[in-house]
Formats: sequence, C-alpha cells, structure tokens
Amino acid sequence: MDEATRKQILRRLQIIEGHIRGVQRMVEDNTYCIDTMKQINAIQAALSKANQLILENHLSTCVTSAVRGDDPAERERVLREIAGIFEMSSKV
Amino acid sequence: MDEATRKQILRRLQIIEGHIRGVQRMVEDNTYCIDTMKQINAIQAALSKANQLILENHLSTCVTSAVRGDDPAERERVLREIAGIFEMSSKV
Amino acid sequence: MDEATRKQILRRLQIIEGHIRGVQRMVEDNTYCIDTMKQINAIQAALSKANQLILENHLSTCVTSAVRGDDPAERERVLREIAGIFEMSSKV
Amino acid sequence: MDEATRKQILRRLQIIEGHIRGVQRMVEDNTYCIDTMKQINAIQAALSKANQLILENHLSTCVTSAVRGDDPAERERVLREIAGIFEMSSKV
Repeated sequence: MDEATRKQILRRLQIIEGHIRGVQRMVEDNTYCIDTMKQINAIQAALSKANQLILENHLSTCVTSAVRGDDPAERERVLREIAGIFEMSSKV
Repeated sequence: MDEATRKQILRRLQIIEGHIRGVQRMVEDNTYCIDTMKQINAIQAALSKANQLILENHLSTCVTSAVRGDDPAERERVLREIAGIFEMSSKV
Repeated sequence: MDEATRKQILRRLQIIEGHIRGVQRMVEDNTYCIDTMKQINAIQAALSKANQLILENHLSTCVTSAVRGDDPAERERVLREIAGIFEMSSKV
Repeated sequence: MDEATRKQILRRLQIIEGHIRGVQRMVEDNTYCIDTMKQINAIQAALSKANQLILENHLSTCVTSAVRGDDPAERERVLREIAGIFEMSSKV
C-alpha cells in the first residue's frame, strides 16, 4: 500500500473508532434504540467504504503485478482471493 | 433497555472497538490487504449482531408497549420505524 | 394481505420475472459480464423492495393483531419472526 | 464466457425464474407473509450465487487478458469495473 493510501485508510479507521465510542455512550445514556441502530448502520457503511478503498489499492498493485507476472499459480491465487472477498462481502 | 441487555451490548461494542484498533495496527504494519479486508468484514458482522440484539430488545419492550397502547399514531410510528430499520439494513 | 397490496406485490413479481428472462437472453447473447451482473443486482434490489412492502403490510396487520391480542405466546412468536426476518435479510 | 459456464448460469437463471413464479403463486394463495419473505430471500441468495459465478468467469477471462495486455487504459478500466461491482453489491 502506498503511504498516502495507508494514511487515508488509517484516518478513516480512527474516525470509525471514535464513532464506535460515541455509540457506546449512546447505549450508556439509554438513547432510543432506533437512533442507536442507525448509528451502528452508519459505522457499517463507513467500514464498507474503507474496504472499498483497500480493494481498489489492492487491484491496482498486488493483483496487477501478479496477473502480469509469469507465475500462473500466483495469478490464479490472487483472482480467487478477489472472488472470495466478493462472496464474503455479500454475506454481511 | 434492561440492565443486563445494556451491559451485553456495551461489552460487544467494547470488543468491536478493540477489533478496530487491531485493524489499525494491521494497516500500520502493512498487512496483506485481503487479510485486512477479512477483519473489517468480521467487524461488520459483529455490528450486525449488536443491531440484532438491540432490535430484539426494542421489539419486546417499546414496540410491544406502543402497539398494545391506545394511541394509534404512536402505534403506527413504531411500526414505521421497524420497517425503516429493515430498509436501511438492506442497504449496507 | 388486503387485495390492493396483494395485486401490487404480484405486479412487482411479474415485472421481476420478465427481468429475469431478460437476463437469460443477455447470457444467451453473450452480453458483457459486467452488464449482466448489474442487471442481476437490479433484480436483487427489486426483490428487496417487494420484501419491504410485504413486511410493512405484515406489521400493520398480523403483527398488530397478535401484539394487541391476549395470547403472550402468540405475541412473542410474531415478534421473534420479525427479528428472524431482520437477521436473515442481513445475510444476503 | 465459455460454453459450459454459460449453460450453467442459464440453468440457474431458469431455476430462479421458476422460483419467482412459485412465489407469485404463494402471494395469490395468500400464504403467510413470513414464508413468502423467506422464499424471496432465498431467490436473492441464488442471484448472488449466479453473480459470483459470472464474476469468477470474468476474472479468469476478460480481466486476465486486459491486465496482461499492453493497453494501460484498458487495464485500468477492467479493474475499475471490478471495484464498481464490489461497491454495487454491498448496497443490496
């Protein structure tokens, strides 16, 4: 991962951590359930966005190198991983 | 929310917070992208489970009271909220 | 389900059936994979919308009757079903 | 798409079409809402599986050719499409 992308992902994960702590306070303060659920949903969407950025970086670096490389097994491995990530994401 | 449920939800959110910090370290340590994405996915699943528990509690307390109560507007409001939460969750 | 809602759901399901047949033709015609995937995605979204309408009807009819009724077991059953539907939908 | 994969996808889409017609009959027969919703959910899962198969085929054919090819714009295009499909699928 290049330095700029890594910093961007880290920054997002720190914001998400703050958001989680905010939801903990909502639960402690006995906030209305529906409002808490909406915030948890927003965190899930922020995590999807983080995963999206990691995937885009991964495609343009590791996947591109492997697919352009000379090792058919390695090529197949990275593509199978992409398919696996897609399947995994459709189950959350 | 009764005390036992609140503590259970809080405990889960604290574990999720620790999990997020673990993923931050993975990004700092330049862990393989696919492994990081899998952990982010696991956090999303843990948040779904937390939302599920909050919903179950909400259904058996607030929704039950409102639906059994005498105010048709209030009854309609809580049921519309449940439908809204369902729609929102199908978009993450 | 009241007659108007049933007709509305049926109409949507017929449109979805036509959409599925359209995607079959795309596959037969060797349409570009990404375009076929987008159409399959649109069908999934249309099915979510159908489920959303069925849920809204169910909440304002069966769930309301059961929760307002005198049988605590029946009340608990319908609410558990709602929680179950929510959990199931978050896995697709 | 190779012939075997195309036939496999088509067969799945025909089964899904039959399943949709089955759900139409459930609605006509006034089946219990929750049971209808479960079947609609099962159809969504079957469509996810079909999309998964199309993606796997696409990765090992079009994406591999483009990424191994000499046109950087084409390479970027197919990878951006994969990222886009991933984002789209996380919204259903």
